Amino acid sequence: MSAYRPADIGMPLAEVDTPCLILDLDAFERNLDRLKESLAGKSVLLRPHAKSHKCPQIALRQIALGAVGVCCQKVSEAQALVEGGVNDVLIANEVVGAPKLKHLAALAKQARVAVCADDAGNVAALDAAAREFGVTLDVLVEIDVGANRCGVEPGEPALQLARKIAACKNLRFAGLQAYQGAAQHLRKVEERRTAIEAAVAKVKGTTTLLAAAGITCEKVTGAGTGTYLFEAASAVYQEIQPGSYIFMDADYARNEWTESGIPRFEHSLFVWTTVMSRPSPERAIVDAGLKASSVDSGMPRVADADGVEYVKASDEHGVLRLNGAAGYAVGDKLKLIPGHCDPTVNLYDDYVCVRNGWVEAIWPITARGAVW
Amino acid sequence: MSAYRPADIGMPLAEVDTPCLILDLDAFERNLDRLKESLAGKSVLLRPHAKSHKCPQIALRQIALGAVGVCCQKVSEAQALVEGGVNDVLIANEVVGAPKLKHLAALAKQARVAVCADDAGNVAALDAAAREFGVTLDVLVEIDVGANRCGVEPGEPALQLARKIAACKNLRFAGLQAYQGAAQHLRKVEERRTAIEAAVAKVKGTTTLLAAAGITCEKVTGAGTGTYLFEAASAVYQEIQPGSYIFMDADYARNEWTESGIPRFEHSLFVWTTVMSRPSPERAIVDAGLKASSVDSGMPRVADADGVEYVKASDEHGVLRLNGAAGYAVGDKLKLIPGHCDPTVNLYDDYVCVRNGWVEAIWPITARGAVW
Repeated sequence: MSAYRPADIGMPLAEVDTPCLILDLDAFERNLDRLKESLAGKSVLLRPHAKSHKCPQIALRQIALGAVGVCCQKVSEAQALVEGGVNDVLIANEVVGAPKLKHLAALAKQARVAVCADDAGNVAALDAAAREFGVTLDVLVEIDVGANRCGVEPGEPALQLARKIAACKNLRFAGLQAYQGAAQHLRKVEERRTAIEAAVAKVKGTTTLLAAAGITCEKVTGAGTGTYLFEAASAVYQEIQPGSYIFMDADYARNEWTESGIPRFEHSLFVWTTVMSRPSPERAIVDAGLKASSVDSGMPRVADADGVEYVKASDEHGVLRLNGAAGYAVGDKLKLIPGHCDPTVNLYDDYVCVRNGWVEAIWPITARGAVW
Repeated sequence: MSAYRPADIGMPLAEVDTPCLILDLDAFERNLDRLKESLAGKSVLLRPHAKSHKCPQIALRQIALGAVGVCCQKVSEAQALVEGGVNDVLIANEVVGAPKLKHLAALAKQARVAVCADDAGNVAALDAAAREFGVTLDVLVEIDVGANRCGVEPGEPALQLARKIAACKNLRFAGLQAYQGAAQHLRKVEERRTAIEAAVAKVKGTTTLLAAAGITCEKVTGAGTGTYLFEAASAVYQEIQPGSYIFMDADYARNEWTESGIPRFEHSLFVWTTVMSRPSPERAIVDAGLKASSVDSGMPRVADADGVEYVKASDEHGVLRLNGAAGYAVGDKLKLIPGHCDPTVNLYDDYVCVRNGWVEAIWPITARGAVW
């Protein structure tokens, strides 16, 4: 990578080059506060998901505000977080294969690290890796509470796997991972509430079985930005894992929020882009395409621009339909709200952190590209 | 980024960790040869597009096999290529804004660098930057030949802009950029041929006007993997810019090729992934999701696996529908063919280059993330 970077600390935003990833610090900090306030009086611990931000600087701020630690999805991501000073990481995912298990066990000597499992063979491999490094690994059983992705079925299969973990000399059964990912973007509040009620019933059935078998389930963890207050109110979840609340992308903004109790988080994450071509009165081309904003959950939205639509992305270009709007001259800069924050963040090496129109900090996204 | 990397030189592929980006060197080299053979006897120069690979190691191999240089889309990308030893780069795109123009002009002192323009104000700014650095910049007029993205209209508007460039003391009018990007993925050969015939007519109208005005148009450049033999046969294009032919992604593979004259390029680029969960008989979960394979042009395809489909991607997971296939045990590794090679490459720091099942080289993707 060349030495040419789009921004420096102390630069006015107007001079920051494009495309780059802008974090509006005031909006970001208000989102941190709003989440904290929304949990006041609730007996649930906060473990934000760091897969959204991949940045120790942000994880440490979340922990300073009361989070017990963070989650992430990959061993390489956990490693970047621990190297950045985070000392409590739950890999809310299965970790498979000898090289990864070796890194996981080694990491557990440096920080508190837990991991999920949904397979007996994998549990045996986790135990062997932990033994090799002389550590005890916390292992949670992931149960499928409706996402139809990973996880054993709730109830008896979960009990069997918990027994296996508890029987391993170098593992400790640390609870249940029960994330209903498919519920987070159901648009209506009632759909999300209903999906979480179903998840809670599955968790309850499992914890009841565990208790009857004399196996202590010290925590149930899960939940995301779209539903976390429902899990928090369930009396079944002891820990919640929202991630996107700090940024609030365009896709989450399409959810209905009224009467969910969940605060209106603000957009704090933007792709800063330049109008690079004005080939016709109704079309402006910006310099941020697929490689600058992930389109898996829809096109980015143009911030502060009623009626102007980002209608098409190619690799390095975005097409704006102006719908009669004035301005948008070649060289003008504007903010895009990414369709999906997590994979968009994963495209960049840094957050350009802005307050009152000035670059206040540049935070490295040290787990960018850490997918293994 | 942590020191944990998925592969080392000399490792058998079976031991390479996942997800990572695999380049099958034999297939890659056959693709290079096939393109070269398909151009034998044709009076057209080859300038492959480096936006697909972002890797000086690959650019230098293309040049060693006869390419006159490469194209790219961004100044930061050009910088990474020049720093990697490439000495002739066309930025086949507009470059806007003072910081970028400064970097562009500075780069022109180190290598042969050309750029496109479609705006008179931008031409003046290019001239000023070139003057400041004491260089003469080659500038091509981009014309819109049907892609409806950037570019002035063919004919009179192109002539006017060419005159402006020719009148600038520190710029040299270097020809026309005429890329019909919208034609590349039209599925039927005849649709692509017809689209390029229309583009060729627009180019001809413009070169005729330029000649009548006494302005030398030393080259017309454009074309992609889907159509390059049509442009090569036109007697109007002097240079072609295919990029994806080296990798051949799943989306390009959906094109019809028979009777196009264009060789059947092989898939040489793969995402190496592990089965991480087998929650049900019909479902396997792999560890490569949105952050490991871009889904903008559809889901990845499972290589060498009749009937098994990659049906859904979330950030860090892919869902395979097995359709009755056996195998796919937790820990098994397999190759995915990315839906779209360019944005997938942009997710990784390295190609893990494999031959006969062994890692032969690791090529850094030095322009990964170079989007400005």
